[in-house]
Amino acid sequence: MEILKARIVSDGMEIGTEIVKVDSFLNHQLDIGLFLEIGKEIKRRFSDCAINKILTIEASGIAIAAITALYFDNVPVVFAKKTQPSTMTDEFYGAPIKSFTKGTVSVARVSKKYLHKDDRVLIIDDFLAHGEAAGGLCKLVEQAGGTVLGIAAVIEKEFQGGSQRLREAGYRVDSLAVIEKIENGKIHFKTE
Amino acid sequence: MEILKARIVSDGMEIGTEIVKVDSFLNHQLDIGLFLEIGKEIKRRFSDCAINKILTIEASGIAIAAITALYFDNVPVVFAKKTQPSTMTDEFYGAPIKSFTKGTVSVARVSKKYLHKDDRVLIIDDFLAHGEAAGGLCKLVEQAGGTVLGIAAVIEKEFQGGSQRLREAGYRVDSLAVIEKIENGKIHFKTE
Repeated sequence: MEILKARIVSDGMEIGTEIVKVDSFLNHQLDIGLFLEIGKEIKRRFSDCAINKILTIEASGIAIAAITALYFDNVPVVFAKKTQPSTMTDEFYGAPIKSFTKGTVSVARVSKKYLHKDDRVLIIDDFLAHGEAAGGLCKLVEQAGGTVLGIAAVIEKEFQGGSQRLREAGYRVDSLAVIEKIENGKIHFKTE
Repeated sequence: MEILKARIVSDGMEIGTEIVKVDSFLNHQLDIGLFLEIGKEIKRRFSDCAINKILTIEASGIAIAAITALYFDNVPVVFAKKTQPSTMTDEFYGAPIKSFTKGTVSVARVSKKYLHKDDRVLIIDDFLAHGEAAGGLCKLVEQAGGTVLGIAAVIEKEFQGGSQRLREAGYRVDSLAVIEKIENGKIHFKTE
């Protein structure tokens, strides 16, 4: 997705060789005009799938998932929670998610009310790095007996191996901007 | 907003006299069709304001803010963070927010890059209860020298006093469904 890559180059900040900071438009301040383009492009790439639910994880995936849902006939969006809120009194599906940047493990939770065996789910997140969050969300869908039709990430850091691991596990993965490496302060994108 | 009130009655669950659980459509599973109606109604109520930024707080406010931004010419949305992410290396504005349900205090943070003195801000959140979150967000805007033009909540629990305190402090507050009390398992809305 060329306008996204151009935006990452113009407004993103690489920190060392591992992190791209895009909080000016993607995950702190949100450029809703760009999000509409992102949603449209995700729909284009998964237009062959009969998706009836979008699943994401708090917090940065939520706005992308909500705007993208507009292009999928307003299918429900469910976001997994990283902490157990006081009002979450129902039974839930849970999957551990390791954070490599923080060195912690959290549990992604979705109430059993909101994932079912007839769900055909598109998983959406802002970043795909080691694939921990997306892999955990797949587990939640499968605990409910549902089907993961695909995983869409806005930015993939291919060098961290998440997409390869997820594809080897049988999932369809499609990222709008794939970063091969960050070297000498320059972001190298994979050619589409 | 009648369709919202009807939805709260049909799908919400009151827990005791203090909590209304609306996670089937508002803050765990999200009904994007309803969110479009919510966004349209927030725009209607604040149509006289020259808003150039929407501010919310993670996680439940994000989708509402993102969809509402569509009705305000795609103004940027900024969401305050409740924890300091590893990539938040910039200076930030911070305000303490007390959670009455959890009995904790967290700090809402926004990078100084994303709030400015020429900002005319609409604050959006899912719930307005004691007014702690909204009040904290107002402080962030004011630390930056910006102006809070209004506070929009989807559901207000008037009996917890937040809206009154915020209005006494000079803010314009408008909530789409105002709950006066919860009694004997029945939700009583304020008449508009």
